[in-house]
Formats: sequence, C-alpha cells, structure tokens
Amino acid sequence: MSTFIQRLKDAWKANDSLVCVGLDPEPERFPRAIAAGRAPIFEFNRAIIDATADLVCAYKPQFAHYAAVGAEDQLARTIEYIKRTHPAVQVVLDVKRGDIGSTAERYATEAFVRYGADAATVNPYLGTDSLEPFLRYEDKGVIVLCRTSNSGGGELQELMAPDAKLYQVVAKLAALRWNARGNCLLVVGATNPAELAEVRALVGDMPLLVPGVGAQGGDVGQAVRNGQTASGTGLLISSSRAILYASRGEDFAGAARAATLSLREEINKHRARAR
Amino acid sequence: MSTFIQRLKDAWKANDSLVCVGLDPEPERFPRAIAAGRAPIFEFNRAIIDATADLVCAYKPQFAHYAAVGAEDQLARTIEYIKRTHPAVQVVLDVKRGDIGSTAERYATEAFVRYGADAATVNPYLGTDSLEPFLRYEDKGVIVLCRTSNSGGGELQELMAPDAKLYQVVAKLAALRWNARGNCLLVVGATNPAELAEVRALVGDMPLLVPGVGAQGGDVGQAVRNGQTASGTGLLISSSRAILYASRGEDFAGAARAATLSLREEINKHRARAR
Repeated sequence: MSTFIQRLKDAWKANDSLVCVGLDPEPERFPRAIAAGRAPIFEFNRAIIDATADLVCAYKPQFAHYAAVGAEDQLARTIEYIKRTHPAVQVVLDVKRGDIGSTAERYATEAFVRYGADAATVNPYLGTDSLEPFLRYEDKGVIVLCRTSNSGGGELQELMAPDAKLYQVVAKLAALRWNARGNCLLVVGATNPAELAEVRALVGDMPLLVPGVGAQGGDVGQAVRNGQTASGTGLLISSSRAILYASRGEDFAGAARAATLSLREEINKHRARAR
Repeated sequence: MSTFIQRLKDAWKANDSLVCVGLDPEPERFPRAIAAGRAPIFEFNRAIIDATADLVCAYKPQFAHYAAVGAEDQLARTIEYIKRTHPAVQVVLDVKRGDIGSTAERYATEAFVRYGADAATVNPYLGTDSLEPFLRYEDKGVIVLCRTSNSGGGELQELMAPDAKLYQVVAKLAALRWNARGNCLLVVGATNPAELAEVRALVGDMPLLVPGVGAQGGDVGQAVRNGQTASGTGLLISSSRAILYASRGEDFAGAARAATLSLREEINKHRARAR
C-alpha cells in the first residue's frame, strides 16, 4: 500500500486543495430535517462530504463529538463512506492519543484497524515509546501535537528548555527521530504564524496540520505563506465550524460548499506557484 | 453531592486501602470460560470486582482496552456495576484527554455524564483552557499527567525550563491554578520515586495517582514513603496486569484477590500510622 504522505500528495494535486474539513458534528446545530433522522450525525456528515469532497484533500473527524454522545457507529460509517465514495481523499482521525507503549498499541489498533483512518493525531507528552506503536504503521500518518491553536497552548509549549522552546524540541524530535519511517507530521496552529515559520524551518518538507483558521481567527494568508513548502504544498489547513455551520438552515450543504470553495481559493491565492 | 476528594478519603478509610485496580481487559489473556461468553470483557471485570472490591479505594478502567475492540457498552456496564454494587469505591476513567476548550467540553461530557466516572485523567500539553471544562465539574476529580511511568516519559517531562523541569511546572500549575476548586490531582509514576517526593513537596496534600508498580517495576515501599501525606494517605497506587492476570486459569479471580491483598499489605506496611 502507498504511504500516507504519497496519498496526501496525490490528494493535494487531484483537488488542487490544501483544505481539510473537520467533521465536528454538533447535533444541536443541525437543521431540523437532519436532526429528526435516525442517524443524524452520519446523515449530516454525508451531506457535507457529498457537497465538498471534490474541494478537499482530507476530512478530519474529531473523536470527542462522537464519543460524547455514544456515536462510535456513526463515526465508523462516516469514515467508511468517505473511503468508499472518495478513496483519494484522506481521513485524519483527530483523537490526540498519548499513553504508555502497551496502551498506545491498542489506541493505534482503534484508529487504524477499527476505524481504518489514514492518519491519527497524537500527544507527545509521554515521549517516544508512546508514539512508536502508531509510527510502526508505516502506511499511516502520525500527526504529533507541536504548537496548538488554543489560548492556553503556550503555557507549556512556549516554555524555554535549555536550547529551545518546548514546541521546538518537539519539532526537532519529530524531524530527527520520530520521522524515521517518513510518516510523521506535526500540528501547528494558524493562530501562531511566527511559530509556523519556525517549525517549517526545522522540519524540511514534513507536512503540517494547521487548525485555527475560521472560528479560531487565524489568518489564512499568513498561515500559507509561513507554512508552505517550496512547492506550495506541505499543509493541511483545517476548518470545521466555519464550514459545517456556514448556514444552519436546510441549505447547510450548499453553504458548506461555498465556504470550502472560498477557503480553497483564499489558500491558493497565497500558495507558491510551482506545484 | 460530596466532592471526589471527600469520597476518596472515605474509600481509603472504609477499606484501609490505597490500592487502585486498573481494569485493562486483554481478551487474549482471559480464561477460556470467560472468553467464550457473550460479553467477555464485562464478565471478566465483574469477576475481578466481586473478588477485590473490599480491598481497594478505586478502579481505573483504561479506555484504549475498550475502544480498540468496540466495547464501549461493556465499559459503561462495568462502571454502572461498580457504582451499583460498591458505591463507596471510586471510578477513575483513564482517558488522558487533552484538546482545545470547545472539544474538551465534549470529552468531559463523555467521562462524567455518559460514563458517570468519578474522575478522569487528562493531559496538560494544551494548557489551562483544555483542562477547565473538566475542572468545572466540581464534584469530579481531574487527574493531570505530571511525571509518567513509561520509559520515554522523561524526554519532555524532564526538560529544564528556566526555573524548573517541565513536570515540576505542571505540578506548580496544578497546585496554584488548576486546583482552585479543590478537585485537581496528579499522575506521578512509581518508577520515578525521587520525583514523587519532589511533587509531594510542591502540592501539599493533593492526592497523587501512582501507576508503575507491578508489571512496570516500581518499588512499592519507596512510592509510599516518598508519596504519602503526613496522615499516611494521599495516594492511589494503581496496579493492573499484575492483578488481573495473576493467574490465567479458571482461578483468576481468586488469584487477583490474593495479589490485591498482598499489594494492600505491602503498601500499608510503609504507611505513616496516623490515619
């Protein structure tokens, strides 16, 4: 099987898009006709996918939104639906796992075998042996939190270790150690554009998952200019709420398509042309 | 409702025990009669609980062991069974969540509402706003990873920030900020006994969840002496595999009881007497 990075490159090219749509279903914001159905989360996701799959490189279901309401089956159906109808589009399971090795093995099984995701997010706080069981899946992507987009993200991540800030240490470990199989990526939020440029300088062409545009307020142009590789790729720019809830009426899927198109255009405007 | 800390104190006293049994079901290690049943994970857990509930202060189901095999229903049944048959024994859901605020809210709902756990483990890498949605449940315990027991735990956690190592920064944040409602605890592994003493000095009487005895090799006596409070409590000493799989035959529940008794005795031998 091809590697995640190769499949991601193909997806970037096929849809000329660095957009990753976060599938964070909030049933209380669904239009009435969807909310009344038997599998509302899956039906909502399917409508969003049908409306946007030719405009994105990846979908990113956020685990908590399914786990909080016991909708693991609808999460599985969503991923299965994406893989069946749009096999080129990649699926990032946003689970942010981090646990000791023997437990991490089970989490890797969950993400890659049970749900069949192409990539998963993980937390580096427990170090190499907590990441290794994920990294061992050579054809999957392992996306390590580095500098997150939330307001408290800097409390630990910006702490100055002897030679570098904590998130820079994480970026260096990713580049020098965790990427031995070429399947490691990092999360760097668009709300920290300067850090995005620093991380890019540390990790070569390693792809970065960039949340924080849209509802969280990060600037798209700055994120692209600071985060892209020389070939104008290297990014998955993730937006969730600004796309999913662009309209809360029955026209939500059309509104999501328009918002995705507009984000793709805004991103492409700032991309280096050699791609 | 009483606070988690009060309920934990009551449980320490009722069973004269600091033992927390980790419920990490590994179906491949179940005795044949259990493995052949319709809900093997729940049946295994029930047998362990029936055999040990008068000897422990808490149970700690480890989420990955359920999620990897799609056994969320058996996790829910296990917690419901503990609360119904042994209401004094506390349930710590070991999920190590860490995500931005709006997502953390859903994870808190999962742990405290969907599963009804008394406490949950969380990861501090994303900072205060990722913990706050958990801490807002004033009657629940929020157990923050500080110095973990695994081999790679020190890679980030021992990094020297300007004034203190990262895990010490976490301990200070816990004591000074995250414990404003008196419901914050920390994880410090028994494999790092010196760090256990340091953290105890930083956080006063805050209870510590201590994994790493048993299969991971941490010394019980050192952990108790370095981690306990003046009253000989302040600890949940967690053991999973050494208890659950003390025997792999049909006598597994009896063997688990014997191993739990022996761990309780070993712990109590080293506890300060004023309790």
